[in-house]
Amino acid sequence: MAAAVSDEAWLEAMLAVEAALARAEAAAGVIPVEAAAAIEAACDPARFDLERIGREAIAAATPVVPLVKALTAAAGGEAAGFVHWGATSQDVVDTAMMLVARRAVDLILADLDGLAAACARLAERHRGTLMVGRTLLQQALPITFGLKAAGWLVAVQEAREALGGLRDQRLAVQLGGASGTLASLGDRGLEVMSGLAQRLGLAEPALPWHGARGRVAELGSALAVAAGTAGKVALDVALLMQTEVGEVAEAAPGASSAMPHKRNPVAAVEVDACARGVQAELVVLVGALRAEHERAAGAWQAEWPALTEALRLTGGAAARARQALDGLHVDERRMRANLELTGGLVLSERVALALASGLGRGRAREVVEAAAARVAAGGGSLGDELLADPAVARCVTPEELEHLLEPGGYLGSTAAFVDRALARWRAGAARTP
Amino acid sequence: MAAAVSDEAWLEAMLAVEAALARAEAAAGVIPVEAAAAIEAACDPARFDLERIGREAIAAATPVVPLVKALTAAAGGEAAGFVHWGATSQDVVDTAMMLVARRAVDLILADLDGLAAACARLAERHRGTLMVGRTLLQQALPITFGLKAAGWLVAVQEAREALGGLRDQRLAVQLGGASGTLASLGDRGLEVMSGLAQRLGLAEPALPWHGARGRVAELGSALAVAAGTAGKVALDVALLMQTEVGEVAEAAPGASSAMPHKRNPVAAVEVDACARGVQAELVVLVGALRAEHERAAGAWQAEWPALTEALRLTGGAAARARQALDGLHVDERRMRANLELTGGLVLSERVALALASGLGRGRAREVVEAAAARVAAGGGSLGDELLADPAVARCVTPEELEHLLEPGGYLGSTAAFVDRALARWRAGAARTP
Amino acid sequence: MAAAVSDEAWLEAMLAVEAALARAEAAAGVIPVEAAAAIEAACDPARFDLERIGREAIAAATPVVPLVKALTAAAGGEAAGFVHWGATSQDVVDTAMMLVARRAVDLILADLDGLAAACARLAERHRGTLMVGRTLLQQALPITFGLKAAGWLVAVQEAREALGGLRDQRLAVQLGGASGTLASLGDRGLEVMSGLAQRLGLAEPALPWHGARGRVAELGSALAVAAGTAGKVALDVALLMQTEVGEVAEAAPGASSAMPHKRNPVAAVEVDACARGVQAELVVLVGALRAEHERAAGAWQAEWPALTEALRLTGGAAARARQALDGLHVDERRMRANLELTGGLVLSERVALALASGLGRGRAREVVEAAAARVAAGGGSLGDELLADPAVARCVTPEELEHLLEPGGYLGSTAAFVDRALARWRAGAARTP
Amino acid sequence: MAAAVSDEAWLEAMLAVEAALARAEAAAGVIPVEAAAAIEAACDPARFDLERIGREAIAAATPVVPLVKALTAAAGGEAAGFVHWGATSQDVVDTAMMLVARRAVDLILADLDGLAAACARLAERHRGTLMVGRTLLQQALPITFGLKAAGWLVAVQEAREALGGLRDQRLAVQLGGASGTLASLGDRGLEVMSGLAQRLGLAEPALPWHGARGRVAELGSALAVAAGTAGKVALDVALLMQTEVGEVAEAAPGASSAMPHKRNPVAAVEVDACARGVQAELVVLVGALRAEHERAAGAWQAEWPALTEALRLTGGAAARARQALDGLHVDERRMRANLELTGGLVLSERVALALASGLGRGRAREVVEAAAARVAAGGGSLGDELLADPAVARCVTPEELEHLLEPGGYLGSTAAFVDRALARWRAGAARTP
Repeated sequence: MAAAVSDEAWLEAMLAVEAALARAEAAAGVIPVEAAAAIEAACDPARFDLERIGREAIAAATPVVPLVKALTAAAGGEAAGFVHWGATSQDVVDTAMMLVARRAVDLILADLDGLAAACARLAERHRGTLMVGRTLLQQALPITFGLKAAGWLVAVQEAREALGGLRDQRLAVQLGGASGTLASLGDRGLEVMSGLAQRLGLAEPALPWHGARGRVAELGSALAVAAGTAGKVALDVALLMQTEVGEVAEAAPGASSAMPHKRNPVAAVEVDACARGVQAELVVLVGALRAEHERAAGAWQAEWPALTEALRLTGGAAARARQALDGLHVDERRMRANLELTGGLVLSERVALALASGLGRGRAREVVEAAAARVAAGGGSLGDELLADPAVARCVTPEELEHLLEPGGYLGSTAAFVDRALARWRAGAARTP
Repeated sequence: MAAAVSDEAWLEAMLAVEAALARAEAAAGVIPVEAAAAIEAACDPARFDLERIGREAIAAATPVVPLVKALTAAAGGEAAGFVHWGATSQDVVDTAMMLVARRAVDLILADLDGLAAACARLAERHRGTLMVGRTLLQQALPITFGLKAAGWLVAVQEAREALGGLRDQRLAVQLGGASGTLASLGDRGLEVMSGLAQRLGLAEPALPWHGARGRVAELGSALAVAAGTAGKVALDVALLMQTEVGEVAEAAPGASSAMPHKRNPVAAVEVDACARGVQAELVVLVGALRAEHERAAGAWQAEWPALTEALRLTGGAAARARQALDGLHVDERRMRANLELTGGLVLSERVALALASGLGRGRAREVVEAAAARVAAGGGSLGDELLADPAVARCVTPEELEHLLEPGGYLGSTAAFVDRALARWRAGAARTP
Repeated sequence: MAAAVSDEAWLEAMLAVEAALARAEAAAGVIPVEAAAAIEAACDPARFDLERIGREAIAAATPVVPLVKALTAAAGGEAAGFVHWGATSQDVVDTAMMLVARRAVDLILADLDGLAAACARLAERHRGTLMVGRTLLQQALPITFGLKAAGWLVAVQEAREALGGLRDQRLAVQLGGASGTLASLGDRGLEVMSGLAQRLGLAEPALPWHGARGRVAELGSALAVAAGTAGKVALDVALLMQTEVGEVAEAAPGASSAMPHKRNPVAAVEVDACARGVQAELVVLVGALRAEHERAAGAWQAEWPALTEALRLTGGAAARARQALDGLHVDERRMRANLELTGGLVLSERVALALASGLGRGRAREVVEAAAARVAAGGGSLGDELLADPAVARCVTPEELEHLLEPGGYLGSTAAFVDRALARWRAGAARTP
Repeated sequence: MAAAVSDEAWLEAMLAVEAALARAEAAAGVIPVEAAAAIEAACDPARFDLERIGREAIAAATPVVPLVKALTAAAGGEAAGFVHWGATSQDVVDTAMMLVARRAVDLILADLDGLAAACARLAERHRGTLMVGRTLLQQALPITFGLKAAGWLVAVQEAREALGGLRDQRLAVQLGGASGTLASLGDRGLEVMSGLAQRLGLAEPALPWHGARGRVAELGSALAVAAGTAGKVALDVALLMQTEVGEVAEAAPGASSAMPHKRNPVAAVEVDACARGVQAELVVLVGALRAEHERAAGAWQAEWPALTEALRLTGGAAARARQALDGLHVDERRMRANLELTGGLVLSERVALALASGLGRGRAREVVEAAAARVAAGGGSLGDELLADPAVARCVTPEELEHLLEPGGYLGSTAAFVDRALARWRAGAARTP
């Protein structure tokens, strides 16, 4: 991923734009075919001094001014006169940004697919593995680890589909010339724009989008959602890896420089750090929508590094989340032990509902709350405390209560949900509806 | 819009969820039909003390605990025992949030449609109205005001379509019970979820999404893009309204408390302020993706006010942007005067390209740069300065040069772009491809 | 707090500014004393129709235009001609914002003081209460709960001091007139500004700050730090309240609408939600620094609601964090049990350091890592696994090892740190140096 | 600046920490003096393979694990056993971060000083240079360019003082060991911490701050304020450089790749882009306050790149803002011409106030508004339109009116404000009070 968004990658993308532009213009009869061939031949990244272009870019607030100078020299002869014909800096930077984004997004999509597959494997394998569900960080009701993994799966797939959709539909060529009119291409503007789009495999926009930055903001949003979704998986992993919980462990936990025993959730931690970074870059990208006239004075220039960083960090988040799940060690016994930690409290809802028919709902809830409070205060199990209440004893037999307190019997639609998530995943489309 | 996202609107939406839930459960045979009828009858907002619910909500960190208490009292009798059956607080809040969002988004979409229509009218009327294009806040090349408006139009329409798509596909019912298993609904969970979705006209999700907040973050993103796009239009209006530019004026500019002569771009200013607010709320919404387990401890609770505010402010941005354009006064003479302000400099690209055939491209650019520098230093027009250069005089006649310096002749694809934007708008689909 | 930042509070503050302005101008001989008296008398909030002012504010993008109109009517007679003399909308809104901020900040400071006191009580009482320290959510080394609370204490005090310092030094009057020159006050501008500052008890700035928004951004930052610090306390509380950890419990945990046994960390959760909100508003406030000329077109108008909300939410965060700690139930036995959960692994660093003298540091670490791995794989305690290694047995006796594995003996500077924090707190100055 | 925050700079800083730690520990008798000497000698950046450390850092989620491994090998012999003694990864990273920050902040402060000096020069030279003040992007009242520059000066100085204050007081050493107790240093913890602080010239904190991230967030805030203040200057420059305004020009404007005449405000544009980036990183830094227990799982790891980037970008903003002002070309004639552009409307407030004594304030405002409207509609000057009104003619003579319409006579406290700002700047303390 680092390579896909490196300065080298940007240079390569900008040269690809210049080459394709020359070809498209030659095909439209705007510049000579020989000039286009010479320009294309000159667009070899190895011939350019990246550091120098970077240095000179500052003086013009765009790398295209020094790039065009160097390319003109490289093309030489007649062709020199036709380099960058009719284009402006922004055309090259924006279109190159789309190429860089496409390459990076493809890597991200592959990692999201791998992450989804890892979720699916866990959902399938642990479809019936009992564990406790937790809300507001408190134990709530029994679930299965398969259901938790299915929840991750659907979220990852939905984020992947949104990002994939943008990749296919919104990565568009930008070509407008100095003010978005393609003035210097005469009446061949649309033809050249269309040809450029075809050559680069990018979408053709309705209009040049020099001042309309929706597609960049949308891309940033989709990256933030994808990274945040990877972050959700990672946060759950880190919480489940807590020493006191111990239900899962990353396959390659991290060491400590001080403590020999440490097994840190390093993949999860790095996902979280990446996701925070991406979400901050989004502030730049949505802020850039408020762009002055035909090219913004600052907002646009802030977009390139922000999007580049957002791509890189989303790639990091997706890849590390996948690593966190690949080979994840799942401790089913610990899951079961944690589920039983409260002496049945996690079934309190079920018992209260069951007692409601005999006691009325309000009274049933009071009875169960009182018993739960005794359990929490150090009493016995919920079953014992309930049976000690004569009102309860009149409603249910000890056997019925034991049955009610069996977590595996109170899973509702868990299996159906897991199956549904897996079926959608197999069909390749989790996105609702 | 304020009404659509008010506390009253939230109460109404939560009650609509409780009522529809009871009906869906009765239809699935989970609760008695009579109980559902009584509950539905009790779900009358007028019977609830909003202030008290708000006050008591703090103690439970959710308004649903006091709401259910009040609704249980209101339903009374047998029905009391079946209120909120099988649901958890989050089910009610999340589904209500989708209802509130839908109502607010519908208002926003209407205003975006109105804004698009206003853009289209301007694009059509001013298809050929010459003005100068500006990049980095400097005059660049001639465009038409119609092209600028067409650029707004496409951006607004694309933002509208993205938001509209989310409205139709991603506003989904949330029903999972205390841990996302619908445990207390036994084997009727999916049936009830489906029934609830149908009754409320919301999408049915693959799985409960208590811990998977993608759809809220996506909605926040689409709002931020829509508000930011309105902000782009407003920023252009405010810049064009500058005293020194004076090309447009809002129909109802704002007064000053001190200066009798002031005509402030108040609608544009308020759009900008709203857009900034929405984009900040997005930080909360994408941050909430990193949610703990089956319900987040803080991130989730931060979502409701953030989304509510994002909806309200996007509504403000869209409505005020529309007002900024409706009845916009366009000063075509001032546009023309500004275009001629530089004595032809805005045609420098054209002249340099024209001279390139005679002088070579590099030499032509040098010649034009030198002439432009003399113009900027207080010389005559670009035409005069160029003709004073013998090298130029050998290449073009004064007549040819005069022709080159006519802005209306250097518009490239402007008209085609305007037509394309209008054609897509009329077809109701500007979103690429 | 809600009252301190309500629309009513804003109205009151704006009227206080108008009244003090009139008085200051009368004292400087700018307007008649009688007029000032009449204006002051008219500045009674009860006489103003808040809803109407709000409605009319939209048309001018400032509430001051309708406010001045109403005040002029209320003052009547001669005085009417001297209402708002020499001031502009921004003077009134900005100065009122400072007054609103001061009142809200005072409430926040009181809650931060209460929070600090609660931290100090816990630090004192639990100076020696053993618990485990956790890094990356993994058990690390023994600490005491007093040290944890001392860490909170120092953080809260530092945030409090920063906010208190801004309150005293940076809440300044704004008075510049329509363009920051105080033109209509002739040569009495500085005198009036100074008099206004004195009357309102605000600082006098070097210059009017209509276009220099540093103090607002600084205030927003201090609020974000304060709320985030409260959020750190709350996050620790919520993590320690996890069912599987169970080391503390809020005095008034929240109920669930579904599960009778739930004891939710509601105060902590609400702190977190508030902190997220404040930190988002900061995006607006630092963004507003980039303000156009003598008054920004959008950025300024976005400040008022953002700062108001930041004040309200920081107030919520501080108050709820204080509630989370007041009466916090601390389960010392559970702390001890969790500390022993790993069979001594949390002392692995200590053992490795002790063995280093005999085995060399590298070999000692390997030996301890191997033993730790056997413990983690389900073996016995770290002590047993180490003694089973002949290399270890040669270096330490079982008694020495037992001593090394006693957590209370490996606390380093814990007590000294707690004392230091408490001493600084008692001295009222924790802020370094 | 790039060098000050490079990977090399980080490596150097981390090694400086390890070396100072060894020295401080030797001085406290914790490790042998010879070992400390050997460790210090080994801390030569040239001996370390930065790329390899970076690669291996990923597996541990911290660069310190591979760094310590390499340093241990480099120290060799007895000393190897005493490398990194008693410290944890976070101690090294956090303290190194403070060193990196100090070096970068010093560069930033120098550029802010240079920027302030440039502002002061402009304030002094143009103390009386008339121009128009603009609010909401509309011409308001006369000011002087000196006053505008004085406003920049005060803002820059205040931001500089805040940042400088943090640099001196809040850049503190972090040393806590694995859990913040300095357990492995026995009773020498405080002595070593103090010694480390002295050796590195950093402040000594009350407590280790592994979980209390206030100082990093405060630093981030001060950077965001500094960058945003530079951004305010830059925005004004870019707006004043607009072709239609033309009041200033950067000394080295940027070229366009397409248009020979372009003179882009490149320095200003780059300041704006940098400021946007810094303000986004602040989201990460304030978010990191909500840190889990004794070391955060993600928030902490996100801090390093975010702060590094915030430092780099603030440096860019300050340096480029300084360049924008150094040698700024100021066009006094254009300022005057723009001031007169509206035929006297910018004096409407003054005229209305003057007429108030004769007509009453309300009537005077109406009269002036009506005249202003006629001017705006294409009539003559404000003076002519007013005199055409008999009511006005009865109150003022043409000579009096001419006098009232002289902008230089309506500057109020402008000169006093400029002098005040310059006096404070010369005294080296603009920060209120």
